[in-house]
Amino acid sequence: MLNIVLVKWRLSHTQQLHLQWKFTMSVSRAFKVLVSHPTVPTPALELLRSRGAETIICQSLPPSREEILEKVPGVDAIYWAHYQPLNAGILDAAGSQLRAVSTMSSGIDFVDVPEFQRRKIPLGHTPGVVKNSVADLAIGLMLAAGRNFHAGRRDIENSQWLTERIDWRMGHEIRDSTVGFFGFGGISQAIAKRLQSWDVAKIIYTTRTRKENDVDFKAEHVPFERLLQESDFLIVAAPLTDQTRGKFNAEAFKLTKPSAIFVNVARGGLVQQKDLHEALTTGQIFAAGLDVTTPEPLPADDPLLKLPNCVILPHLGTQTWKTTIEMSLLAANNIINAMEGKPMIRPAY
Amino acid sequence: MLNIVLVKWRLSHTQQLHLQWKFTMSVSRAFKVLVSHPTVPTPALELLRSRGAETIICQSLPPSREEILEKVPGVDAIYWAHYQPLNAGILDAAGSQLRAVSTMSSGIDFVDVPEFQRRKIPLGHTPGVVKNSVADLAIGLMLAAGRNFHAGRRDIENSQWLTERIDWRMGHEIRDSTVGFFGFGGISQAIAKRLQSWDVAKIIYTTRTRKENDVDFKAEHVPFERLLQESDFLIVAAPLTDQTRGKFNAEAFKLTKPSAIFVNVARGGLVQQKDLHEALTTGQIFAAGLDVTTPEPLPADDPLLKLPNCVILPHLGTQTWKTTIEMSLLAANNIINAMEGKPMIRPAY
Repeated sequence: MLNIVLVKWRLSHTQQLHLQWKFTMSVSRAFKVLVSHPTVPTPALELLRSRGAETIICQSLPPSREEILEKVPGVDAIYWAHYQPLNAGILDAAGSQLRAVSTMSSGIDFVDVPEFQRRKIPLGHTPGVVKNSVADLAIGLMLAAGRNFHAGRRDIENSQWLTERIDWRMGHEIRDSTVGFFGFGGISQAIAKRLQSWDVAKIIYTTRTRKENDVDFKAEHVPFERLLQESDFLIVAAPLTDQTRGKFNAEAFKLTKPSAIFVNVARGGLVQQKDLHEALTTGQIFAAGLDVTTPEPLPADDPLLKLPNCVILPHLGTQTWKTTIEMSLLAANNIINAMEGKPMIRPAY
Repeated sequence: MLNIVLVKWRLSHTQQLHLQWKFTMSVSRAFKVLVSHPTVPTPALELLRSRGAETIICQSLPPSREEILEKVPGVDAIYWAHYQPLNAGILDAAGSQLRAVSTMSSGIDFVDVPEFQRRKIPLGHTPGVVKNSVADLAIGLMLAAGRNFHAGRRDIENSQWLTERIDWRMGHEIRDSTVGFFGFGGISQAIAKRLQSWDVAKIIYTTRTRKENDVDFKAEHVPFERLLQESDFLIVAAPLTDQTRGKFNAEAFKLTKPSAIFVNVARGGLVQQKDLHEALTTGQIFAAGLDVTTPEPLPADDPLLKLPNCVILPHLGTQTWKTTIEMSLLAANNIINAMEGKPMIRPAY
């Protein structure tokens, strides 16, 4: 601030006006942003406005496609803060002036990405920043499933607390175990980082190609079959794509250890849920911890909810203020960059 | 084995006999051990027998004091593998030849220790080895309570999964938090070790005196009031004594952060449970994760079980085979040492 004042003081009045105009142009050229959700964190809205945005905020909760379609025509950018289909219908309604869209999510399985590519509309999302919150939750699920948190709770509620049995509700520790990751991106690496001082025996992972930084975690790239056969804790943290859909099915669970703990913090669609249910009831695996299911919300009468060895959460992976605010700011910055003609910070394609 | 054979080869027949007798005496002098529980892990029983023990195993489940009192007269040692009162009544019944007792537990609040001291009967227990299993569980409770595992589960079961609300079931991350320990012994340090790569802002602890090795964890010794005021995660891992009983009461919860997560893996008796219930319902703390309660088993209609922000387990801290076997071997070795005239590995006084 001090520098700007000094510069102004030395310039002529005309020069000053020119400078002010340039300053205004570079930081606050006006643009319209549709925000699809009424409770996007305030810091993100303030950031957008400070850079010249007029924010048009949809008020329906849950978000209504009707309201979005009504308010979207003519906007320069869309801030998509929920998980309903983002496709040609929305883009058509917005109009050809649309120059940027960012989701406030890591996964973008609800977005018709090819449609964005065809129209050359920049699309951003918010991976990376979600890793801390999701990694904490994933380790919570490893421990909760591995140590019978749900079964133990049910025992208390059913007056079946058998405190006098030494071998009662025996669980599995993380030390000396093999932790296997399906996918080894930011979330898996954030989990591996947290487990550095847990005396894990081995970290293995399956991805299409070997990750160069896997040496940081002494992690070994293995084929899918070995991942299934060797993992004591098997953690799914990969995008849902045509290649990964239904990957964890009956055939896969035939190969897992009966003592294995299966954790999914990615998308329910990577798992054949009936086959998982079967594996949990027949002892093909010891327990599961799921933050994601098919469908979401999961109906209250879903058979998985009857199992003592299945910990289930209602997709709380990113549900901390710290991470949510970081996601909201990243989405805003994706849009601001595009408005200023720069590449998005996290482009989705 | 090779050395023994070589020695035997060079000795006369009389010398050989003498050597064999000494060998037998040193490793397998016969002694009787009462084992109070029918499912003590086999490796511990085999170890005892390999060192000359005749094991008298009580068969009742839950263990019956009557059976113990009937079988204990005349034994040299007692392997106490459950949590019922171990007091003068048992020692009187055993008789004056009793030379060693070991529990298979870390906490010994169920033992009348002064009675052992008065009679000068060596008493062992199994702290130390429990730390890994309990530390895993404690971090599981930090995460489960901090991230709404129980509330989220209830939401699914009650069809209240509000997936479309950005601010729904917001929880707390471990990174950048202050983790506070009441007690900084083996279990707390095992937790602190595991959190070394979680980007915790600060570790603080309250004990009677400063721990010399706290520098290993960059931990700061603080008075109880500061522990309460500054902890984002407040973990109780201290023995139940006259000094610690009821320490976490209404007065204490007045000082805690409304966002604090309270975890107890020690003994229920350190907490005034009614005051904790009050703190959880009035928002004096955010959530609690309890592996221990008063009483145990906790009745199925206990008011704590009605709270969405209280994760409760039926005392599963040491319930892994890995740790249970380590505990059982340590208890056996405590007894073997005493039988061989050596100090116990983990004496309780």
